[in-house]
This record gives sequence, C-alpha cells and structure tokens, in this order.
Amino acid sequence: MINNKILVILFSVFISTSWGQIPQGYDLWMTYLKIENEGILTNYRNGLSSVYFEKGSRVLEAAQTELGRGLKSMLDQSPEISDNYVDAKVMLVAKRLNLDKTILKVMTSDINQIEEEGFIIETINHNGKEKVVITANDDVGILYGVFRFLQLIQAGKRLDDLKVLDAPKIDLRMLNHWDNLDRTVERGYAGFSLWNWQKLPEYIDQRYIDYARANASIGINGTVLTNVNANALVLTPMYLEKVAALANVFRAYGIKVYLTARFSAPMEIGGLATADPLDEEVQKWWKEKAVEIYKYIPDFGGFLVKANSEGQPGPQNYNRTHVDGANMLAKALQPFNGVVIWRAFVYSEHDATDRAKQAFAEFVPFDGKFMDNVLIQSKNGPIDFQPREPFHPMFGAMPNTPLMMEFQITQEYLGFSTHLVFLPKLYEEVLQSDTYTKGKGSTVAKVIDGSFYNNKLTGMAGVSNIGNDLNWTGHPFAQANWYGFGRLAWNPNLLADEIADEWLKLTYSTDPDFISLIKPMMLNSREAVVNYMNPLGLHHIFDTGHHYGPGPWVGNLSRPEWNPTYYHNADEGGIGFDRTPGGSNATAQYAKEISTLINNPKTCPEEYLLWFHHLPWDYQLKNGETLWNGLALHYQKGVEEVKDMCSTWESVKPYISKDQHEEVRMLLEIQLKEAKWWRDACLLYFQSFSKMKLPAGVEKPKHTLEYYQSLKFPFAPGIRPRWD
Amino acid sequence: MINNKILVILFSVFISTSWGQIPQGYDLWMTYLKIENEGILTNYRNGLSSVYFEKGSRVLEAAQTELGRGLKSMLDQSPEISDNYVDAKVMLVAKRLNLDKTILKVMTSDINQIEEEGFIIETINHNGKEKVVITANDDVGILYGVFRFLQLIQAGKRLDDLKVLDAPKIDLRMLNHWDNLDRTVERGYAGFSLWNWQKLPEYIDQRYIDYARANASIGINGTVLTNVNANALVLTPMYLEKVAALANVFRAYGIKVYLTARFSAPMEIGGLATADPLDEEVQKWWKEKAVEIYKYIPDFGGFLVKANSEGQPGPQNYNRTHVDGANMLAKALQPFNGVVIWRAFVYSEHDATDRAKQAFAEFVPFDGKFMDNVLIQSKNGPIDFQPREPFHPMFGAMPNTPLMMEFQITQEYLGFSTHLVFLPKLYEEVLQSDTYTKGKGSTVAKVIDGSFYNNKLTGMAGVSNIGNDLNWTGHPFAQANWYGFGRLAWNPNLLADEIADEWLKLTYSTDPDFISLIKPMMLNSREAVVNYMNPLGLHHIFDTGHHYGPGPWVGNLSRPEWNPTYYHNADEGGIGFDRTPGGSNATAQYAKEISTLINNPKTCPEEYLLWFHHLPWDYQLKNGETLWNGLALHYQKGVEEVKDMCSTWESVKPYISKDQHEEVRMLLEIQLKEAKWWRDACLLYFQSFSKMKLPAGVEKPKHTLEYYQSLKFPFAPGIRPRWD
Repeated sequence: MINNKILVILFSVFISTSWGQIPQGYDLWMTYLKIENEGILTNYRNGLSSVYFEKGSRVLEAAQTELGRGLKSMLDQSPEISDNYVDAKVMLVAKRLNLDKTILKVMTSDINQIEEEGFIIETINHNGKEKVVITANDDVGILYGVFRFLQLIQAGKRLDDLKVLDAPKIDLRMLNHWDNLDRTVERGYAGFSLWNWQKLPEYIDQRYIDYARANASIGINGTVLTNVNANALVLTPMYLEKVAALANVFRAYGIKVYLTARFSAPMEIGGLATADPLDEEVQKWWKEKAVEIYKYIPDFGGFLVKANSEGQPGPQNYNRTHVDGANMLAKALQPFNGVVIWRAFVYSEHDATDRAKQAFAEFVPFDGKFMDNVLIQSKNGPIDFQPREPFHPMFGAMPNTPLMMEFQITQEYLGFSTHLVFLPKLYEEVLQSDTYTKGKGSTVAKVIDGSFYNNKLTGMAGVSNIGNDLNWTGHPFAQANWYGFGRLAWNPNLLADEIADEWLKLTYSTDPDFISLIKPMMLNSREAVVNYMNPLGLHHIFDTGHHYGPGPWVGNLSRPEWNPTYYHNADEGGIGFDRTPGGSNATAQYAKEISTLINNPKTCPEEYLLWFHHLPWDYQLKNGETLWNGLALHYQKGVEEVKDMCSTWESVKPYISKDQHEEVRMLLEIQLKEAKWWRDACLLYFQSFSKMKLPAGVEKPKHTLEYYQSLKFPFAPGIRPRWD
Repeated sequence: MINNKILVILFSVFISTSWGQIPQGYDLWMTYLKIENEGILTNYRNGLSSVYFEKGSRVLEAAQTELGRGLKSMLDQSPEISDNYVDAKVMLVAKRLNLDKTILKVMTSDINQIEEEGFIIETINHNGKEKVVITANDDVGILYGVFRFLQLIQAGKRLDDLKVLDAPKIDLRMLNHWDNLDRTVERGYAGFSLWNWQKLPEYIDQRYIDYARANASIGINGTVLTNVNANALVLTPMYLEKVAALANVFRAYGIKVYLTARFSAPMEIGGLATADPLDEEVQKWWKEKAVEIYKYIPDFGGFLVKANSEGQPGPQNYNRTHVDGANMLAKALQPFNGVVIWRAFVYSEHDATDRAKQAFAEFVPFDGKFMDNVLIQSKNGPIDFQPREPFHPMFGAMPNTPLMMEFQITQEYLGFSTHLVFLPKLYEEVLQSDTYTKGKGSTVAKVIDGSFYNNKLTGMAGVSNIGNDLNWTGHPFAQANWYGFGRLAWNPNLLADEIADEWLKLTYSTDPDFISLIKPMMLNSREAVVNYMNPLGLHHIFDTGHHYGPGPWVGNLSRPEWNPTYYHNADEGGIGFDRTPGGSNATAQYAKEISTLINNPKTCPEEYLLWFHHLPWDYQLKNGETLWNGLALHYQKGVEEVKDMCSTWESVKPYISKDQHEEVRMLLEIQLKEAKWWRDACLLYFQSFSKMKLPAGVEKPKHTLEYYQSLKFPFAPGIRPRWD
C-alpha cells in the first residue's frame, strides 16, 4: 500500500552522509518521521491543518504540545489553533463533557463505553465537514488518545478510516527502577540512573520530561524510582523534596511516583529500636511518614517492598508474617489511597525446599488476608527471570488476592544490552499460559487483568531497562522491550507480532519490505537466546553475581540455591532438576491438568524438560536424538540463529541510515561472539559428565574448559550496590 | 558589524516552540550554527562552493568530513569536491609538499615557519582567482587548520581577510580522565565514564568519535583513559584489546592514548612478589608489558603515574626514590618513544611539615636526574585545586626537568557541575604568575612551554570534566572550561577574555549585544566563587571526602592534613596559616622577590593573605576594615555576584532559545542557594571564634551553625572508588 521504499532509501542516503548528524535513538519511538507518501501526506495536511484543543490542565497542555510536535515533524506543517469547532473544519480534541451535542449525535462509536483512562478516536462527518475527534472522560484519556492518534498517523492510517475505542485493561502499569541513590543501577546495562539526585529539586533535566512522554505514549502510569534493595534515606526530607520535583514533572503525563520502603527504615532513619510491624511506635512512625510524604507529593502512588528476601529486612525478623508487614504499611497509606506492592520473590537459605516452591508455599496460605490496598507482585516464573521459565504457579492459586505481574525488561539473564532479544515474545508466552485453575482458558493474562477473579486492583510491573545512555536502553532494539512491556500492560492479550509491527514502523521505517525482513528476526530472537544459553529447560547456569556469561560449573557459593550446580544437577547419570513427585514435587503446585502432563517426561513439553526432570544423557528425545545430542544441537542452533540475524541485518542496509545499521551490526557481532562462548563453555562442561562426543554439525569449541572457567569480569555492569 | 540580532531572535523563537526538539548541548562548540548575515553567507557560499582536499590518511579523511559537516551546516550548502585546484576556483586543502609551486609563490605567509602540527590558513590570489588555502607540514596540521577555519567562519570572519599562521606551543596537550573501570568517575560531576568497557572492543559508541572531534578541534592530542588512583587490570590483555579499539578511533584525530600504571601491577597482575623498581624481575616485567602494549597500540603514548601519594603504591615502599621508579618505567617505554608522566602531587601523613612544602622538598633535589622521556606533572598550586592558590613553587625551580602543568577542569572544589565558573580565568592567573626565577618576566607559562629552560618535552594536562551527560560536562558553561583548557594548552599566553569570546560565538551566538552581557559575567565568575567559598586566601575548608559544600569545622579525620581546621587554624586569636619564616616557612620555596613581598602581611596581596599569614580578627585590611568584617563582606559579595549573574542571565532571554535559557537559569538557582549556604555556614563557624558581629550589609544566616554541621551527603557524586 504505502510505497515509500524509494523515498526511505533517499532519506537514508541523506542522513548517512558524513555532513552533519545528531545522536540517534534518543527520540525512541517518537521520532515522528516525515510522512513520505505524497498522497497520504496531502490527506493529512488537508485534514489536520486546524485543531481545536480543550484547555484547563497540565495534562491537556502536554497532550496539545505533543500533538503539535508530532504533526509538525511528520507533516512539516504546524496546525493552527482554532477556538471554534462547531462550524469550522478542524480536528477536535476535547473531553466528552465538553463536546457539543451535535458532535455526539454523529459519532458512531458508543461513547458510553469509554472507560477510565480510555479514549475514542473517530473521524466524523459534522455539519458537512469531515473532522477527526479525540475524546475521553478524563484528561489522561485525552493524552493517551493523542499519542495513539500520532502512532496511527505515523503508520500511515487514512483519516477517513479512523475509528478506535480503547482503554487500558490493567490499573497499575508500572516501571520498577532498580536505581540506587549513587546512580548505579542494579541489573542496569544502559549506563546509569536517570535520576540526578545531586541537581534535584531545582534542575529539571529534559530527560525527565522525555521519559514521561515515552511512558505516557504507551500508557505507563506509575514508576518506582528506587531499587527494591532499598535505602531508607530516600524517605528523608532531603530526598522527598527531590522526589516531589520528579513527581511534579510526571504528573503532567498521568504518571504517579512510588518508592521502595526499606522495612527497617524506622530504625535507620527514625531512631527506633525495632521495625516490628506489630509495635505501636513502628506503626505510628509509618503513619507519620505517610502523612509527611503526602505533604510533599499529594498523589504519591505507594510503596514497593522487598522484605525477607536475599538479606532484606522484613516482618519475619520479628517472627511476624508478610500479612503483618504489608497490612501495617497499607494502613499508613490507606487514608491517602496509596497502595502497597509486596513482592513474592522470597526464598530462604534456611529452607532446604526446592527454591521454586518457596514463594507459593509462603504466600498461598495468606490468600484473602491482605488489605484491599495491597497487591502481591510475583515474578513471571518461580525462579528468577530466566530466558525461559514455566509460569509461576501462584498465578491462579490466590483467588482473593490481587496478583501483580513482575516482568524483567532489563536483560539480566538475556545478554545484557548487547543481545538483540525481543521480550514481548516471552511476555506473551507467560500471559497466554493456561493455569487451568478454572478449567481450560484460565490464562495468566486473565489472572493479571482481574477478569478472572474480579479483582478490584490490578497491576503489571516491568523492571526497567532504562539508563542514561543516549538511546536510553543501550541496545536500540531494547527500546522495543520497554515499548512492548507498556503495550502489554495496557492490554495483556496483545500479540508480540502486532507489537513488533507497531514498534518497527514508529522507530525505523514503515516500508513493508523492511518489516517483512526484520519482524521475523525479532520474533525468533528470544528462541535463539534460549537455544544458545538455556535450552531444553536448563536454567540459572549463569556466572556468579554479575550473571554475565556462562558459569554452569559454579558450585562454591555460600547459599546452595545460588549455585548453578543446584539447578542443573549434572553428573555422569544425567542432567536436570527432578521436580516431579519423585523429586521436589514442585509440579504439585500446578493444576492437575498441567502436573499430569509435565510429570511424565514423554508428555512434558521439551522446552521445560530439564526444568522438571533429571534424565540420563542417552534419554531419547522426541526427534529420536539422545538428550546429549539434542542439547548440543540446540546450542549449535542458537549460534546459527544469531548468524542468520547477522545476515538478515546485512540485507536491510538499503532501508535505514548508515549509522543505524552500523550500530546494530556491531552489537550483533558481540552477540555472535557470546553465543559461541555460551555454546562452547556449556558443552565442554556438560561433556565432562556425559563423556559423549559432539554430534555432527556442532562446531568444535575454540578454547578449553579451563579457559572458559578462568574468565573473570570484576567490572561487569549491573552488580548489586556495594553499600548494601 | 554582524547585525544578526533580529535573525538570532527569530531563530530562537523557532527552536523554543514546543513543536519538536533535540537534546541540546551535545554538539558542544561544534554546533555550526547557520550563518544568518546574508552578505557574509553569500560571500561564503560563493568562495567555498568547491573544495580540493588532499587524500591519503584517516586524519585527512576526518578533516575532510569535518569541513563538509561544518560548511553544510553553516552555509546550508555542501561543497563540491574538485580534483583540480590549479585552474579552478576552489578552496584548497593540502600539505605543503603537495602544493603546486605557483601556489607557494603567491602565498604571503612565511611557509617555512610552519611548525610541527601547525598550519597556515590564507586567502590567495592565484591565476586570477581568490582561493582559500589551508596547508601544513603534517596531516594533523591540516586537521587543526580545518577546525580553526570552521571556527573563523562561524565567527563571521571575511574570506578575503584570512591569514593565520599558528602552531601549538606545547607538545603534550592532554586530558586526564579519573575514570574507573566500573565507569564511576572520581571527582566526576557530569554523569559517568564515557568508556563503556563492557561493549568494547566491538561496539564503537558515536560519542568516542565526537569526543575525539571535540578534542582535535582545540588541539588536544593525548588522553589518559584511567584514574590516577589506578587499577592494574587495565594493563591485562582483556582491557588492552578494548583500549586499542579506542586508540584506533582517536588516531584519526591525532590523539594518542595513555594509561595510568599502578606501581604494584607486577604483583597484582604479574604474580611477582615485589614491585621494587631495582628488582630485575620487576624491570623485566615492565619491559615485557611495554612490548605487549605496543603490539596492541603501536602509537601508545605512555604512562601517567601517581606513586606514594594518598595510599597509592610506589618506589618508596621499597626505600627507592621517585627517580628509581620513574626511570625504571621510562626505560621500558623508551624503545617505543613512550613517555612517563610522574605526578608530583605527594604528601605524607608521616611528615609533619606543612603539606604545601612537601612536593617541592621531595622533587627539587632530583632535578636533572630523570630520563629524557620523563615529565614531572605538578598541580597548579601547592595544595589541591583550590578556588585560588598561589602558583606551585616547583615551577621555575627545576631547570633541568620538564615540568608539566596539571590543571583541574572538573570542579571538585568549585561547585561541581552546578556552579558557573569560567576557569580559564584561573588558568590565566597561574600561567601569567611571575616566578622571578630568572628575574622579572619569568612566568609560569614560560616554564611550561619550555621556552625558559629549552626543555625538549613540554606538556599541560587537564583533569577532565567530561562524563556521559547529554551535554558532556553537566553544566553547559563547563564546556567552556574544557574548551579553554585546550586553547591554553595550545598557547599558554592566550587571554581568558579571548577564549570566552571565541567560545560564546561558537556555542551560543555571535550577537555582540549578547556577548557584551555574558562575557563579563563569565570573566567575573571565578572571583565570585572565591568570594563565597574561600576569600582572602582561605583554602581547603570543604566538607569531608566528597568536598561538597562547606566543612570548616571538620577536624576529626585520621590524617591531620585532611582536616579543614589544619588549613584555617581559626581560634580566638585569629585565623590563617602562617607560612612565613615564623611559621612553616613555605614562603622560602619562592624566589626572593616574591617571599619578601608575601612574608609581610602589609605587602602580601590580600587574595593570599590567610594562605600565608595567621592574623588576629581585628587585623586592619587595606580598606580599613577589620579582618573579620572584610571576611564577612567578601562572603556577602560572592552572594551578590551570583545574584548579579542571575539577573544578567535574565536579560539575555531574547538572544537564545527558551530551553537554553531555562537550563542555565535552574543551575544559577542552585548556585545562589549554595553560595548563601557557604556564606552562612562559614561565617557562623568563624564567628564562634571571632565573637564579633556581622557588619552591616551582610545578611543574617538562615539556619544555625548546628544545622549546617548536621548536613550529610552520603551519595554526593565523584567520591573515590570503593574498590580502591
């Protein structure tokens, strides 16, 4: 349809010359590339030359500014601002309450169906004139409508075709920043924290505004500024004043600020002798702290808490429960409509139970005991953001508790910011997983969006991959993971395919030939990383601490469940973690329909085989290969898939600028080097147990096992804060 | 002359609208603003429509690319590339050797005077055609000539007026990055390190190239990538491979890479039992290390070494001398023409002598004992980069040793990156100081540029203020300090006034009205910071460790000379450090002409009064005020000067974009807040000794002394690395 291939090529030649350049990638998916198709451009210029825009709030002002920015850039024409929309030929942006009845009459969308934060975009015929209308019940709905409209324009959608009614399916659509007060970012691979505490509150970095724009453009409405491994100082007046300045910026984009609450804060900054949640002084301290916070930030969102997990303090330090801890904080925030998001990522070094079982065991008994303003936030799988995990069995198992999904957008176990991995494919797999807790069709998405158990509160969180790199996310394609997370938090039933399509059009090019080359590469990229890192259900075999590269041989860490050897259990008899009834019986945490299937290695999906089973090296896979051969061939396949990505990328040179191309080319080179490293290191190590030869087609390792074991990376990015 | 005020205003209106924006400041002084004066523009377009450019090296290629970029941006016209310069009307860029004799004949510049790295820019009349010629003896001279030419064009210099012959006066013009391998930057206030070790060597960040361009544009030809508080790992193959990738980028811009050499590296990464410089195994290890480094980086510059200083290892650990240490490394580098830059910033906690005297005492006796490829690098003053110090008495006192100047560009003691302080004013003060070591006129500049003692090697280093902030330096005006350092390293006799003029025209606007408002503000900014932080010769009264804000009360640090109380000596009897013969006798390290002057408080310049004298609170200053009143009035004056800066900045709104204006406005707000903080905290503290009232005109402190003493900043940026 949109034949702008030649125009894109011309454009790319223009910006790839050495005469002048600006840093690329900063604009994210809001570059607002000039519309190149002349017919469409004329249609837009004609239909969008004049705009009536409702005034009256900072959110509306932000929306109007964005509309102007986008149209100016895409159409090379700034719309006139009109104060009359009844008679004139204008684009019309106003809340439903302020729409003239004659407008409502000719709209074909069912305006009564606009939900909170939702919007309608529709081209109507009014008084004989075609008018684009964006309307909503609330200001933020207008903002979201404007962003969606700009995205449709960028994608080349014809004006006379416009009819969209949409609203978010989830209430809390949040980023979790694991950002420390010294600006290091735990598991951050895109530079350092955006929050320049030193210069706040006075200095408002342009990035804060652009960060808010980017989030609003995909519907994200909450952000936790600080690391779950928390520092109590952020709750002191010096920092609250700075947090308030950020909250003030974000407010204009419909985004609320949240903080992590260190459970021991009453002792560390309050001077109390205890942080026992049943202690009255402690309760009073948190209540007063809440009053203080809301004085600074009247729309403060609430607390995110990591308690009794990996050394963080919590109620169990005082023999109290998660319910005691969460409800104590919830009571303090309740008068202000704040929420407590309590993480379920817990496991104990004093508990010999399979780590995969512990969160379920600790939390499911508390179902229904948390206050109404508490959400329990669980990672997508029962271990820790691996390239592939089965869904967490808590989803579906706590009908009376709002469960919030925690995805990781930053690629801790997925190649940092040097590997191209399109994560919406992983998110989709989790969200579409069937829990069977109410029979077939009981997907995780339905648990999360609240439709399953009619939860009053719903939420989805993504651990941010954002840093102060010029392009925000380190890898330009990692922008797609931020984008995709936002889109899925808006609607958990969107497909990865649609998201890739949208993002590519907004970021690189609408050329269908370009998209037909790159979209399949994106969609397969997650399977590639599973193949070259953790095939067949292997997990947590990363090198220690920093999780950079392979470390399946690590077995000397103080806590058993921190060791890769705990997870793969390789010995001469075989490999894998037996979670069947004969083993840890973690499978019993799933619905019968699932456990029956996965308890039997012959019916267990092979992508989860070694997650649930310990099997001999010569175990026969479905394709007839031995387990050893299958493992080796998966590793090799992963490497081949990265090679394919490299050659696919070579083929799109004509469609993008030289700099855009070169940037990803260099990163793919690293990805290929590291895919080989994973393959060679893991196969050499596992071969020391299997004693079997590499099958035909698998390349010979470049170095010895000792070489790979000798590699040390003391300054790999993203390690835990050293003051912790 | 250049009447583009109205045009600038139009431009600023255009870019200050909310329709579209790109991050500002990234382009530094290489924005290449469109020439707005129509007459000049026509002159340029006409004279520069075609270019002949010599080919044959990456440096020439970089120069040609830059010329194209700059002309395209300023003239909105890309020059044609011509392969004939004899007959055609072209701009001509070629080395002298390749110039046609007919060209040489009509040039009026004395072409025999082109020195190494120097260039000629001249408009000639050749075969009846006016031609701009840039020529040089070497490729890098061409590169420097192109950058200078673009700067002249930006400033609106007429083509027919062009005649410049210039060359650097100093050999090594270097940045010292105090960047750690974890990307934190010691004393860095502009984000984190540019060097993304994780992604090197494959991934070449566009910033590396733009960093090199910026440096080349001001003649910087060397960069030390790593912190003087060094980590030996950078000398291992894993890192050398990455360093080589950076060196490869920088090579095209005439910039050599240097590394810091941790003296104990032979033990830490070499497995030796000692690092004794007289040990043969140690000598062999360094020789082999040098061979290895030069395999990776054939033009490696050499080592910068901080030894036996603030806990760093050095030859004295083995009862050897600085000469033993430096010469041992120099021998290893000599075969490759590498140099050793050995820092003179030493003082010992075991030495009760006045810290200001120790470097002189340790180094002057070694004059003439260092190998030819060793330079001794001394900070500008005898203490540590204070807002004002007298020049270091070593300058002029070591006739047989090349002394390299170390300035700090990053504002460790000068308000971090939130205070607008134009440092070339400080540099100029130091460089133009008269050492009198060869009679009147023996300036520090002459010591540094080698003209005084005919040194074979000369150098000037600046401790970088560069980080990964979008605008590189945190404060947009801090870019002027990077720029100004480079210009003074090129020619230490340039004036701060000229530098401010150049920088403003390249960065903001050539409008003479704008410049006449802002240049005086820049030129006075350094005196303002002296007034509100350290007036009348006070020094080192900063808060502990991070040096953020005032801490004159700190007296509990383990090393006496780390305590502010050591430096101000305030008690009821008075204030100041007695460095006269009756005190530490540090004045004896200066020439007789100086010491005579400064030993007497009545003839000692008042800006150094308390640096050299301990005086009673009622001591009468030259203006008749008591010392106490004078001190208080200086603090007040500093605050008033910042208020003036704020109102001056308000007045330039019409000349620059809204965003450019707002950015500095917010920073000045912080500066004013902190200037008051300095005044109030210091005066309250000193008042506890003087017991005297604040004189009329000095504002009453906002808080109590206890309040100021209670302030803590555990996450202030720029602290020393924690792995150190």
